[in-house]
Amino acid sequence: MQVNAYGAHAGDKPLEPLRITRRAPGPHDVQIDIAFCGICHSDLHQVRGEWQGTQFPCVPGHEIVGRVTAVGAHVSSHAVGDLVGVGCIVDSCQHCAECDDGLENYCDGMVGTYNGPTADAPGWTQGGYSEQIVVHERYVLRIRHPEGDLAAVAPLLCAGITTYSPLRHWHAGPGKKVGIVGIGGLGHMGIKLAHAMGAHVVAFTTSESKRADALALGADEVVVSRNAGEMAAHAQSFDLILNTVAAPHDLDAFLVLLKRDGALTLVGAPASPHPSPNVFNLIMRRRTVAGSMIGGIPETQEMLDFCAEHGIVSDIELIRADEINAAYERMLKGDVKYRFVIDNATLK
Amino acid sequence: MQVNAYGAHAGDKPLEPLRITRRAPGPHDVQIDIAFCGICHSDLHQVRGEWQGTQFPCVPGHEIVGRVTAVGAHVSSHAVGDLVGVGCIVDSCQHCAECDDGLENYCDGMVGTYNGPTADAPGWTQGGYSEQIVVHERYVLRIRHPEGDLAAVAPLLCAGITTYSPLRHWHAGPGKKVGIVGIGGLGHMGIKLAHAMGAHVVAFTTSESKRADALALGADEVVVSRNAGEMAAHAQSFDLILNTVAAPHDLDAFLVLLKRDGALTLVGAPASPHPSPNVFNLIMRRRTVAGSMIGGIPETQEMLDFCAEHGIVSDIELIRADEINAAYERMLKGDVKYRFVIDNATLK
Repeated sequence: MQVNAYGAHAGDKPLEPLRITRRAPGPHDVQIDIAFCGICHSDLHQVRGEWQGTQFPCVPGHEIVGRVTAVGAHVSSHAVGDLVGVGCIVDSCQHCAECDDGLENYCDGMVGTYNGPTADAPGWTQGGYSEQIVVHERYVLRIRHPEGDLAAVAPLLCAGITTYSPLRHWHAGPGKKVGIVGIGGLGHMGIKLAHAMGAHVVAFTTSESKRADALALGADEVVVSRNAGEMAAHAQSFDLILNTVAAPHDLDAFLVLLKRDGALTLVGAPASPHPSPNVFNLIMRRRTVAGSMIGGIPETQEMLDFCAEHGIVSDIELIRADEINAAYERMLKGDVKYRFVIDNATLK
Repeated sequence: MQVNAYGAHAGDKPLEPLRITRRAPGPHDVQIDIAFCGICHSDLHQVRGEWQGTQFPCVPGHEIVGRVTAVGAHVSSHAVGDLVGVGCIVDSCQHCAECDDGLENYCDGMVGTYNGPTADAPGWTQGGYSEQIVVHERYVLRIRHPEGDLAAVAPLLCAGITTYSPLRHWHAGPGKKVGIVGIGGLGHMGIKLAHAMGAHVVAFTTSESKRADALALGADEVVVSRNAGEMAAHAQSFDLILNTVAAPHDLDAFLVLLKRDGALTLVGAPASPHPSPNVFNLIMRRRTVAGSMIGGIPETQEMLDFCAEHGIVSDIELIRADEINAAYERMLKGDVKYRFVIDNATLK
C-alpha cells in the first residue's frame, strides 16, 4: 500500500512530502495508523547523512504512536483499535542471547525503524514520519496512557526508554543520588523518570536559565556545571550520573563526583571523541564509565506502564509535517522544550 | 628503635643503606621482623620522584612478609611468632563508609606503607626495604602458606590483591571468560588467580615469546594483541578483561572483545592518557571501562587464604638488598619473571 510520508532524497536536501510503500500485514504483523511521531536528534543525523550509510529516500522517525488497523492471523497480543507504540527497533534475530534476554537493542541483527535492512521495498526501513507502518508484533508496545496524552507519549519510545533502561540497570531508586547531565529531549525524561523511581535527582546544566525548569521537571537540585564551586560541593556523592550530552566534553568533571563504585553512563556518542578520562579517577574509587543504548522490548513495555502509572509523559511542542525542517533548525539551537512531535494527521 | 633499611636520599640518587626509626609498639600495634619484601613498579616511581610529593629519605616496599616479634597489650588477632604480611596500607580513618565496608583502600584517609603521613618520625611512613616494621593490627594479615613459600608470598600483598579484588568484584569464575592484558608482575598473578577461580582465562601479550609462559601460568589461551586476526576471533566474547598495562595504549582493541555488559578494568594508570575510547564501543553493548585499586584488608586476607588453599604464590627472583638498583634497571626492561623479592636478611 502507498502512503504519505515526509523525508529527504539526499543529505543536503530538505525533507518534503513523499509516497512510500508499506507491506501487507503478514501473519505476525501489526498494521498501525500513526497518530504522532516524535523528532529525535538521531533523525536529523541520519537524514542529513551525518552518519555513515544513509540510504535515500530516507523517512526518519522512531517515536511512533497510533492505533492498530489490522493484525495478522497469528497475532494475539494486539487487536484492531488498540493504542500502540513503536520505538527504535522493528526487527532482530530473535534467537541470540540478547534477544532471549529481551535485550533486542543489543542484538547484532537489530533492525532500526528507519534506514535498517529489510526485504520490503525499497530495501531499507522507513520510519514514522508517515501515515502508516507495519511491524512484527514482537516490536509493538501497548500504550495504557489516556488517549489525550498520546502525542506526549510518543517521545517515550526513544527518549523515555533510552534514559529508563540505564536508570533501572544502575539501580536508580530510593536512597540513591542520581545526576542527569543535559536538560534536553533525553535529559528532561531522565529527570522525570529518576524522580518517579524515588532517587534524589540532581540536574546538571551549563545554562543558569534552565535552573527553574529543571526543578519543575522534578530535580531536587540543579548544578550549573560551569560553576566549579557548585560542582565541588557534590564531590564523591553520586551513585549514578546519566550523561545525555553528545557534544565532546570533560568527563573527569563528572567522574570525580561519583562515590565509590559509581557509574558515569553515556547515552550520547560524540562525533569527535571526548577528552580521554583520567584513569586515576576510575582507579581511586573503582568507578566506571559505561554506555547504554535505548532498551529492550520488554523493558520498553515496562517503561510505558511505569509512565502510565505515574502520569509521566514528555514535554512537547506539536508541529505540522510541513514544519519539520524548521523544527530541525530550532532543535540544533536547543530551542525546544523538550521534544518536537509531528501531528501525522497533517500528512494527509 | 633504629633499624637497617635501604632507600634513597633524592629522586636522582640510587638506593643505599640507611638507618631508620621504628616506633615502639602501641597497644594495637604488631612489630614484625621482615623476612622478605617484593619490589613493585610503584616503588620505583615513588623513590625516583616520578610521582608528586615523594619525601626523602624514601624507603619503599609494600609487599612485606615476616614474623611477629612483639604485640601491643590490646592485640588479640596476632601473636609473637606468627607469620604475617603487610601490604600497601598501614592506616585509614577507620570510621568512613569505605572502612566500614572493609574497603580501606578507598578511604580518603588511607595511609600508604611508604611516603604516607604519620605521627612517627620523620613524618612519613617508611616501607618494607627494612629489617622491621610496626603496624596497627587491623592492617596485618595472617599467612597460612608453608614457611618455605614465604619469599614467593610477598608479592601477593600488592600484585596478588590488586588482581584478586577486581576478579572477584567482576565475578570471575566458572562459565566466565576472563582476559588478562600484560604478563608481568600483576598479569602473571591475574592469570594464576583467574584460573584458580575457575574462569576460562585468555592472556593477552604483545610478545609472541611469552606464549608458552602464559600457558604454563594457567592461561587457557594466549592472544598476541598485535595480531588483528587473533584479536578478531575473540570479538564480543569476554565477560571481563583485566588490563594490567600502564603504558598508554588503544583501549578500543579490547573493548570490542567484550560481550554485552562486559567490563574492561584498568589496574594501572598511565603517566600520559590512553587514547580516548570510542563511546560507541561502550554504548553498543552496554560495556564499561572501570578502574580498581589494590583491595581492602578483609579481601586481602581472603586472597591470602585462597592462595594458601590453592597453592598459589608469585614467580619470583630473590635478590640481595645491594642488588635493588640493578633490579630496578632490569624491571624497567621487563626483564624479570615475574617479581623481584628482597631477602631482607641481607640488610643486616
